Amino acid sequence: MSLQRLQALRALMSSQRPVLAAYIIPTADAHNSEYIDAADARREWISAFTGSAGTAVVTSSQALVWTDGRYYTQFEREVDLSAWTLMKQTLPDTPTLEKWLASNLKDGDVVGVDPQTMTRDEWTPIQTALKKISAQLVPISNNLVDDVRIELGDPAPKRSHNELAPLHVRYTGRTAGEKIAELRRKMAEKKASALVLTALDDIAYTLNLRGSDIEYNPVFFSYLIVMETNVVLYWGDGQLPPSVTDHLREEGVDSVEGKPYGDILEGLKEMARELSESGDGRHVIWLSNDANEAIHRAASGSDVLKRPIDLISEVSPVKLAKLVKNEIELQGFRNCHIKDGIAVVRFFRWLHDQIDGGEQITEVQASDKLLEFRRDEKDFMGPSFGTIAGSGANGAIIHYSPDREGQQTVIERDHMFLLDSGGQYRDGTTDITRTRHMSGNPTAEQRDAFTRVLKGQIMIGSALFPKGVKGNVLDSFARHALWEVGLDYGHGTGHGVGHYLNVHEGPSGVSWRPYPDDPGLNVGQILSNEPGFYKVGEYGIRHEDLIEIVAVDKGSDHPKAKNLRGDYDGRGVLGFSTLTLVPNQRECIDAEIMTDFEISYVNAYHRRVLDTLSPILKERGLLKDLEWLEGQCIPITRK
Amino acid sequence: MSLQRLQALRALMSSQRPVLAAYIIPTADAHNSEYIDAADARREWISAFTGSAGTAVVTSSQALVWTDGRYYTQFEREVDLSAWTLMKQTLPDTPTLEKWLASNLKDGDVVGVDPQTMTRDEWTPIQTALKKISAQLVPISNNLVDDVRIELGDPAPKRSHNELAPLHVRYTGRTAGEKIAELRRKMAEKKASALVLTALDDIAYTLNLRGSDIEYNPVFFSYLIVMETNVVLYWGDGQLPPSVTDHLREEGVDSVEGKPYGDILEGLKEMARELSESGDGRHVIWLSNDANEAIHRAASGSDVLKRPIDLISEVSPVKLAKLVKNEIELQGFRNCHIKDGIAVVRFFRWLHDQIDGGEQITEVQASDKLLEFRRDEKDFMGPSFGTIAGSGANGAIIHYSPDREGQQTVIERDHMFLLDSGGQYRDGTTDITRTRHMSGNPTAEQRDAFTRVLKGQIMIGSALFPKGVKGNVLDSFARHALWEVGLDYGHGTGHGVGHYLNVHEGPSGVSWRPYPDDPGLNVGQILSNEPGFYKVGEYGIRHEDLIEIVAVDKGSDHPKAKNLRGDYDGRGVLGFSTLTLVPNQRECIDAEIMTDFEISYVNAYHRRVLDTLSPILKERGLLKDLEWLEGQCIPITRK
Repeated sequence: MSLQRLQALRALMSSQRPVLAAYIIPTADAHNSEYIDAADARREWISAFTGSAGTAVVTSSQALVWTDGRYYTQFEREVDLSAWTLMKQTLPDTPTLEKWLASNLKDGDVVGVDPQTMTRDEWTPIQTALKKISAQLVPISNNLVDDVRIELGDPAPKRSHNELAPLHVRYTGRTAGEKIAELRRKMAEKKASALVLTALDDIAYTLNLRGSDIEYNPVFFSYLIVMETNVVLYWGDGQLPPSVTDHLREEGVDSVEGKPYGDILEGLKEMARELSESGDGRHVIWLSNDANEAIHRAASGSDVLKRPIDLISEVSPVKLAKLVKNEIELQGFRNCHIKDGIAVVRFFRWLHDQIDGGEQITEVQASDKLLEFRRDEKDFMGPSFGTIAGSGANGAIIHYSPDREGQQTVIERDHMFLLDSGGQYRDGTTDITRTRHMSGNPTAEQRDAFTRVLKGQIMIGSALFPKGVKGNVLDSFARHALWEVGLDYGHGTGHGVGHYLNVHEGPSGVSWRPYPDDPGLNVGQILSNEPGFYKVGEYGIRHEDLIEIVAVDKGSDHPKAKNLRGDYDGRGVLGFSTLTLVPNQRECIDAEIMTDFEISYVNAYHRRVLDTLSPILKERGLLKDLEWLEGQCIPITRK
Repeated sequence: MSLQRLQALRALMSSQRPVLAAYIIPTADAHNSEYIDAADARREWISAFTGSAGTAVVTSSQALVWTDGRYYTQFEREVDLSAWTLMKQTLPDTPTLEKWLASNLKDGDVVGVDPQTMTRDEWTPIQTALKKISAQLVPISNNLVDDVRIELGDPAPKRSHNELAPLHVRYTGRTAGEKIAELRRKMAEKKASALVLTALDDIAYTLNLRGSDIEYNPVFFSYLIVMETNVVLYWGDGQLPPSVTDHLREEGVDSVEGKPYGDILEGLKEMARELSESGDGRHVIWLSNDANEAIHRAASGSDVLKRPIDLISEVSPVKLAKLVKNEIELQGFRNCHIKDGIAVVRFFRWLHDQIDGGEQITEVQASDKLLEFRRDEKDFMGPSFGTIAGSGANGAIIHYSPDREGQQTVIERDHMFLLDSGGQYRDGTTDITRTRHMSGNPTAEQRDAFTRVLKGQIMIGSALFPKGVKGNVLDSFARHALWEVGLDYGHGTGHGVGHYLNVHEGPSGVSWRPYPDDPGLNVGQILSNEPGFYKVGEYGIRHEDLIEIVAVDKGSDHPKAKNLRGDYDGRGVLGFSTLTLVPNQRECIDAEIMTDFEISYVNAYHRRVLDTLSPILKERGLLKDLEWLEGQCIPITRK
């Protein structure tokens, strides 16, 4: 089947004028979304490879997919290897896509791509590499995979276009009108006549609207253009329902024009033309640097303009605004983590009970049960990502997700069980990983690794650091205790988290990889703190909390506050407060390799978990859960 | 006087066609050298500001210098403030040079600069900013400050052009012929017909020649072009003396052509033209990305070429080659650090003796005495940078250097004394900082800070980490113990060090600032390890060792070796071995805030210093020094 699809695509490539020597199919939608809708899953359809990351290139004789180490095994299982070649992009000898193109194409060759599926930052290096061999990269405005799907009678599913739900200011803390007024101030500083928002979470945040077009991310397909006196929302067929216009009016946004989602490129060209003809100076249009190539081209004006338009292509001001949570959002984060703590504690008590009682519980059943417990909590809207429930060796697969089809893995009593899950609540988003040994009898090696991961998490959680440093500077703290014995983990230590929005939110993070748009850490940001260790084929360990950045001075409630004798020459001292409220398994902690500080840190955290959750468990009459939690929170000590 | 110079420059700017609205005078030579020759000190001459960093901009009505926080006080002392404005570039409200130009110039204005004094990476953002306001940046090939100097009868001093000294393969470990053969292999991979070396230390390293044209850096003004079958050295008047040609022949470099230093731009244009006319494909010329704008323009061919030349502008392969020291170079580093340790130990014993005996020793006298001790050591060639000898409050001035003019500062018995110095030896380069309290009675606050800086140095020195990580990931380890109490230091933690070459050598370093060309840490690299703490107006503390990167496994002589139970999944474990051999002052160490590991680390280091140096001191009959050293190396303990 894959071969038939490839042949049809190749025929279409040959029928283009000029003929395409290669066609690139990224895993992407027009909004640079991390998770994509089925309507945008072109690389998956053409190659049959279902992994979340990868870029396909098809030429007349070859078909290749570049993807990373998470997916090598899966690729070979899913894909017709007689037609497709796997390019292992994490191996040093694998050429990059642009290098491969440069050495496999010839002078005059034309490479096509749907410019809506590539950001300008991705476009430019490919274009440069091709220019060197006198070949070129050209935008093909209709997506050829979509065309092939129609031709073969298997058209792409319709793009999701679900209802919008206003999010009340008691959750957001700031009206859409206030947010847009702030954007206009920033636009005035840059003399920008228009700001084009293309990231779906930027738009949802700005308008205090939520949707459900993409799984787990409460966003909706749209574009938003903010101008000096009006805003234009490209959404659906352009008809905004009264619930939306009423909400926006109540939030102080009077002049909202609806336009059809599909008209964005024409709309931008028209706007560029109108601006170029109005007034007597040059106009500036502000795009986000992750806007796609088609958006960049349209905003610069397709036809001859009276006066050229100046494009600013830099980090969206909404990304920087939503990075710093306001007091209402922070209160919501703290609150939803109490609810989430109750749900996860109830789940683990249930799971231990089942397994101790000899029940066979599969990873999928565990995930479903956890969802049930979360559903009991107020304002719970759904999971914030696909639950990773990995027992034994499955725990070592970093992006594992139990498959509902086929053979189910039972959570064994003598296994480590890694559970990474989260919830969307109207008042915030959670993301928590706990690892537990189901019989409480880990091996000495597992206990050592569990404790070193915990030491790393504590070194981050208890760190003090100057305001304004980038998240990268913290990453090695999380690895130190592992590095000391030759262990490490192959992922970053922390990501930003949206407020009832995407669970992975930029532009900051904690990793050895640079975050070029990180404006520096500041009070009110939310990060995850999630070191791990993975022994392939045996077990995986990860401890993940969400943490809030707080200002610390001598009087603060912070374990290191009283020793402070400076504030970094006036820059200010930052630290973290942990939001997540679920204990770590005592039986897996080796207090012998912990410092006094670390032991008291863990005990204080467990005390806080118990003090916060126990009145609620009592009030709800969940006395068995309370009793279990009390046992989990008994202080740890050295022998 | 400054005003007269400015007026002459402005007159010259007005006489240019087109007239220059602004002229930029960077602190730079044509080789992007860190230290510059007097012949290149144009910004200093025009502004009277002698700081090592800063960029001047002169317009018809304004004259400004952008410089950083180290120099604000000095600027105001040295410069005629009625004519010049200080732009404090480390303050967030100060516009960058390009922003200032964009808001102070108008449509059509022309800004001039000598393109030999600006790298392409510096040129491009200024050009882009000017384009936005329809102004332009143009290269002015004769330097206008040099012209003004001639006009005012104060011509720039002649550029240094000293003799060259071959460095024998018993020091370098690798002949020039082998080094050039390796470069040609790398050129072949990139299909480059020519590699243009412009950094002076790249050239000295490649040819195994040393010079003395720039203070402290044993380099010589030159350019080197490596082609497939010959090499061209632009040096002096182009006449290479027999000592040089003989040396190169002995080292397997047969075909060396000498050309006059001043002909480089014409030579590059000619080469580009010849290449464009030879063969039938396009030719590639490889430039270092820190080559200046004039070099970039010349290599791309000034006139109409038969076929365009493809320029590669990326990190020079010589930078990457000399970053990793070979076994002979490493042996030399270890050896010269023993000699340097002897010199520094003798100096400190002498200094304490003098001060305890009531002598008045100034910072300059101390620096001179230290040089005397170093001169006693074999193959010592001179200091590797200007000695920083800061007593009391002077120690808090990070780039302090005692002035020989005017009032001299005496090193007081109740002061902390910071001494940062180094030597060039034929077998290697040293760079060491020790901080001592001259009476051994620091305040509790000083002792705490001294110890925290030491804890940071130990956290780096004892770190284990995966091969290939960038130096940046280590930086926060050095700050951790300081950050815990709200203290920090305003400089990076480590820099690379050349082998009898520049004491600051790229492209790697340990800092929160990115090192974009860092290829990842690997065995055989040399770094400094130099955390500090500075209390302005009172004292400064810095502990600096040079450290060598070593591979570590369970059997290694490394304090953490025996605990290893992994090698980061095959990536390999790296750690450090300390080269510097001088004790830290015991009286300033507060063992109460150190861990058991840190105490035993310090004691083991002091043991090694004593074991290494004492046989030499004994053999030389330096028994008083030996006795003093023994006292310094007594193990520290908690109360």
